[in-house]
Parts: sequence; C-alpha cells; structure tokens
Amino acid sequence: MNEHTERVRRLQERLLQLQIDGCMITQNVDLYYFTGSMQTGYLFVPNEGEAVFFVRRSVVRAEQESSITVESLGSFRSFGERLADVYRSLFHAAHSRNLRLAAEFDVLPVQQLKRLEAVLPQVDWVDGSLLIRELRMIKSAAEIGYIREAGRVINLAFEDALDKLRPGMLELELMSHIETYVRRAGHIGIMRMRGYNQEVITGMIGAGEAAAMPTYFDGPAGGQGLSPASPQSASRRPIAANEPILIDIGCCIDGYVIDQTRTVVIGTLAEDLLQAYEHSEQIIRSVESKLLPGTVCEQLYMHSLQMAYTAGLSDHYMGYGDDQVKFLGHGIGLEIDELPVLAKGFSYRLQPGMVIAIEPKFTFPQRGVVGIENSYAITDTGFEKLTVSREGLIQL
Amino acid sequence: MNEHTERVRRLQERLLQLQIDGCMITQNVDLYYFTGSMQTGYLFVPNEGEAVFFVRRSVVRAEQESSITVESLGSFRSFGERLADVYRSLFHAAHSRNLRLAAEFDVLPVQQLKRLEAVLPQVDWVDGSLLIRELRMIKSAAEIGYIREAGRVINLAFEDALDKLRPGMLELELMSHIETYVRRAGHIGIMRMRGYNQEVITGMIGAGEAAAMPTYFDGPAGGQGLSPASPQSASRRPIAANEPILIDIGCCIDGYVIDQTRTVVIGTLAEDLLQAYEHSEQIIRSVESKLLPGTVCEQLYMHSLQMAYTAGLSDHYMGYGDDQVKFLGHGIGLEIDELPVLAKGFSYRLQPGMVIAIEPKFTFPQRGVVGIENSYAITDTGFEKLTVSREGLIQL
Repeated sequence: MNEHTERVRRLQERLLQLQIDGCMITQNVDLYYFTGSMQTGYLFVPNEGEAVFFVRRSVVRAEQESSITVESLGSFRSFGERLADVYRSLFHAAHSRNLRLAAEFDVLPVQQLKRLEAVLPQVDWVDGSLLIRELRMIKSAAEIGYIREAGRVINLAFEDALDKLRPGMLELELMSHIETYVRRAGHIGIMRMRGYNQEVITGMIGAGEAAAMPTYFDGPAGGQGLSPASPQSASRRPIAANEPILIDIGCCIDGYVIDQTRTVVIGTLAEDLLQAYEHSEQIIRSVESKLLPGTVCEQLYMHSLQMAYTAGLSDHYMGYGDDQVKFLGHGIGLEIDELPVLAKGFSYRLQPGMVIAIEPKFTFPQRGVVGIENSYAITDTGFEKLTVSREGLIQL
Repeated sequence: MNEHTERVRRLQERLLQLQIDGCMITQNVDLYYFTGSMQTGYLFVPNEGEAVFFVRRSVVRAEQESSITVESLGSFRSFGERLADVYRSLFHAAHSRNLRLAAEFDVLPVQQLKRLEAVLPQVDWVDGSLLIRELRMIKSAAEIGYIREAGRVINLAFEDALDKLRPGMLELELMSHIETYVRRAGHIGIMRMRGYNQEVITGMIGAGEAAAMPTYFDGPAGGQGLSPASPQSASRRPIAANEPILIDIGCCIDGYVIDQTRTVVIGTLAEDLLQAYEHSEQIIRSVESKLLPGTVCEQLYMHSLQMAYTAGLSDHYMGYGDDQVKFLGHGIGLEIDELPVLAKGFSYRLQPGMVIAIEPKFTFPQRGVVGIENSYAITDTGFEKLTVSREGLIQL
C-alpha cells in the first residue's frame, strides 16, 4: 500500500468513526495529499470501498500522477447521477435518509458548495476541515524528508544572503537575493497557506521599525511591505547598522515548506534588544526540553508566556499591544498554517510525526523585532531540528 | 469624493437597484478596492448611508490607509449587535422581514459564511460576487495607470531575459531572471487570482513539448512545472535551439497586474509553427479592429474561432484536444482573472475602462505552443495597448 492509499484508508477509518458516509475533496493541496496529483476535480472517498478522483483537467496528467483511480469528470451537471451510479450501494443504502458527506468548509467557497448541493440534493454536507487537517498533522518519514530538504535549501539561501548584506541595502533587495536562491533550488514561488486572505511568498525581512509595524498577517512580525496593496513582508526601507534585522524566511520544495527566523545585526545591538533576543533563545531551549510525545500543545505556549512575563517582557511578546498574536508556534507541511497550533485551547498532545515551527519573538515599536524560529519534527524520544542555520544573534 | 468613496457609492446604487439591503465585504482584494486598505476585517456597505470598515487587525494600519471610516471590530461574537447598533434604522426597518445582504460567494469559504450566519441570524445571504466583479470590471484612469506601469516593467524584464537566454538554460532559470527583475522593480511576488485553487506567480515559461503539456490551470498553456506538487509554469527542462519558447509573463505592481505573451526561438522555427504563430498575430490584429465600445465580448471569441477554423488550425487553438480552453481573453486588474471574459455566454459590450488580456495561441503536442498576448485598455474610440514589448516572432 503506498502513502496515498494509506492516507485514504486513514480518512475512511475516521469517517466510519464519525458516522459520515463519505468525503468530497476539492482543494488543490488536499487533493495532492490524498492522490499525489494536483489536477482539478473531485476526489470522492466513501467510508468503505474504493475512492475515485473525478478529474476535470487535466485527465491525462492526473492519470500519470495519481495513486487513486482517475475517471474523467465529464459534465458537472450529471455528476450527481454519475456518483450514484459508481457508488450504487452507498447511495442505495441512503435511500431512506440523506447521505452525510464531508467537505473542506475552511477553504471551499460558498459558490462551490452550492454547485455540489445542486447536483447532489440527497446529501447533507458537514464540515470535514478538522478531520483532514488532523490527518495531515502527522507526517510520514517521506514528508519529513521533504521538509528537511527545504530546511537545507533555506540555510544555503540564508548564508548566501548574509554574504551579500551591506548597510544601505533595501529589505526588498535582500529578500530578492533569498528568493532568487531558493527559486533556482526548486522553490515553487510561494509558501501555500490555508487561512482565508493570507499570503506568503518567501516569508519576511524586516529591519528596525519596519519589522515592528503591525499587519493583518496572522503572525508576530508582518513587516511594512511594499504598499497598502501588499502590506506585509519586505519594504523598500534601507537596512542600517546597529538595528535588528529579522529574517523570517522559508521555501516550498516539492510541495513542503520550511519556516525559520534568525536575528542579524550589522554592528551591535542595544543592550535591551540583545537581552530580549537572548531571552527568545532561552524560551526556545526550554520549550525544546518539553518537545516529547505526550506534551500538551497549549502548555508550551503558556510556559513561554510565563517565561516572557518573568523576564518583564510580556508587553513585547509575539507582537506589541493590540497587535500581539496569541500563539508560540504552528504546524507546517504542505501549508504553512497547519495543525497543531501552540496556543490556548489546543489540547493536542505531541505525537511522533508532527512538524512544528516554534517562534518566540519580541517586538519593540519604532525599534524592531528580535527572536528565533526553528522547525522541529517530533520523534519517539524527542525531536529532530529541521532548520539547520546557525543560532545566536548573528553579528556582521 | 475620492476613488474609494466613489466605488462604494456605485456599489450602493447597484444594491438599491437589486433590492439588497447591504453588502459585507471580506476578501483582501475587494477590501483594498473599496477602502484602499488590505487589513483584515469586515467592510459593511449599507445600500444608503455611510460604509464602515470593521477591522480585526491591524486597526492602526487600516486607519492610516483606508478612505472609509474604520472602527475596531472587537469581539466577533458581538458583531451582530454592534452592526444592529451602528445601522439602527436599517436593522429596524427590517424588523418585520429578514435583511438581504450580499457577500462574495465566489471566494468566501463556507466556514466564514457560517460564522456570519451565527452572529447575524436575521439575515438572508445572497451572492454578491458578480455585482462586485462587474463594478471592478470598469477601471479608473488611476487603475489603468498602475497597469500601464506594470506593462512598462514587464517589458524591461522581458528584454533583460532575452539578453540572458542561451541554449541549455533551464526554463526555471530563465523564469528566475524575470522574477528577480520584476521583484526588484516592486512586483509583490505573486499575481493574485480569484479562481478557486488557481495560483500564478509570474506567469509561465514553456519551451518545446513542456509548454504543450496539459495542466489543471485554466489557460491555453500551463506548462510542465517543477513536480506534481507544482504542476504548471516553468520546469527544469533545458531550452534548446529551433523550438518555440513561450514566454507568458506578468507582474503585480502596486496591486495591479499585467499579462503578456511573446514567442521566442533560438535559431529558426519549423514552417508550420511559424505559420501558426503568424496566424495568432493575424487574429490579434483582426480582434484589435473590433476593440471598440459596443462590441459584444463573445463575438470576439467566436470571430477568433472562425479565423482558426478557416486557417485549418481549429484542433490546435487554445490548447489541444480535451484540454482546449474555451476563451480568447480575460479582464485583468487587481486580479488576473477579472471580467469580462471573451468567451461564449459573455454578452457584455466593451466599455471604456475595461482592461482585457487577449491571447490567441496554438498548441502542438510534443512540439510546443506559439502565440501572442497583449493587454488592452478600452477607450472611447478604440483601445490603448498596455503591453509594450516588441511583437513578431522573436528570433535570437
């Protein structure tokens, strides 16, 4: 059994447990996860029996790529009848009641659901987002291999950028060096993100007060960006000496992302910023000591909050004032905002195969952001660090 | 009255005509269009009176950027009461009936609509996508100015790439040169796209058979891509002499995109491919002669189909076989897939202010794709070509 059919089998197990008759998968990343192909169509996974990927285009390409049986979708108008025909016993069993099918409500546009409702009137749709995200939360050895490779590439790009960094260089210029490097190494051009309205290309670079500017972006440091039409990440601000340069970058190699942050300074950093940076390292070291199967995710966040509080840095932790974000880390994989989240209300226990970016950071308005971020795979006995860049404040 | 308040006024006019009480706008690009800010929140536009942008984050930044009144969203749980309080007369008038509010069903995830339904039980939601897309279809002089600027930049990037192009260079390498150039000139990193599951970074480069590979992407030439996890655009295939190199690129400057295609060859092209290329130019010249206010969009597509048929090139037009796409062009602006579409069923008449990318192309399986694409602003008397790159088959 290959990885994709095993993933489908695990989904079916959960569908049966939840008394859901099947799942209709449509989002490109989820399709890739379950079939190995990102062509456009509908993957139908019944709670028992064979899944079929009904492909709109390109059928030829899906047939080459997919581990799951591919059929041409044909006319969408007759998709309901088609499905009832292929899954006769399922639809027959449901004669006396509506079928319960799950779909990805977190990403599926309302129009798309209404189209499905129109051709499948006998279905009650339920939200399958969490179900799918929880399956994707536990990575296989192969998936961790891809993330490890992305970690290797981003480190090379980072070191290359450090070689090129000079006072007066624009944030955008430095970001462009990194993007060019990772792109040639196979970065697909963006880091995919599941959240509505969220965009991330290759992360962010922010120097001095530009890094500390609040943004819509759901992270502790969004950056100034190029204009209100792109109000996050690198700006055209020149990088100066003796200010913190936050380099929070990643790339997407063969579909999988890595996420890492380092703090750099050309010259020296003010004493309080240096201490805050060092405290971010103390937090990450202390959190590492708890990165073991069984640890509850929200406890890691609460522990970091407590450490920031004890150091008198609460107000600066993970953003400033109204714009603080309330998490310490997040799962990564095919998308940058996966489960688990290290935040209040997330009671997941760490398990082998989870991959988590942990990013304690401190924001000083008008002055900058300092901090560190590593990505970790949870193992049977602890963790493997997948980000391999040198740590410590990097002084040039 | 500035552009944003004028846009809101036009939306209100349409809401009144359609007897819709208001519109709730949540998508980042639509928020930017109506407010001038892309921060996260809910823009509520009543069919009469003042619109308010209820911002989740960042309020500070939205206040700096937005032309529309900004208020802090506060707790989402009490958003319903808040709205009823701010828009007392509207909600009061609706006491005896449900309010009819529009939302962007084409992009709004089901979960987001359900959240709104939970806090606003007195509302019937209707699809406002078309309404908004039709308003955005007609660009102001300022918007056309941004697209013109993006056209200027993409031409410089294109000429720079031609200087660097050598036999043996990978498609990805050539694409990376273009991306580096446009990024430094202010490209935001992606070209935004509204369609579900559609992604475009800086367009595509495809040489020989790689360009002709069918893809999920809703365009005539998707390209091979890097792997099944990114199955479109440039691949790692080396570019050879005497094969068609399709360079279909764009960039996004200050939020607005440009889209252009040129066909390049190192050496010479086979006679039939050359003739097909020349026919694509004949089509675009003939279509240009009809680019006038009043022309019906679908007629332009039907006219081009007829020309391809007469030339004996029907099978190759806009893709090949099952993977042909059924349009000649598409609106561009803040997104790459705007209205109008030049396709069957689109009965819009051309109007001054529309900006349309027109892209007749011919696909030859195993051999490549040839064609041309320009972007045009419709004027009172005809058009302005916003893509300024030299035309004709470019032989190096």
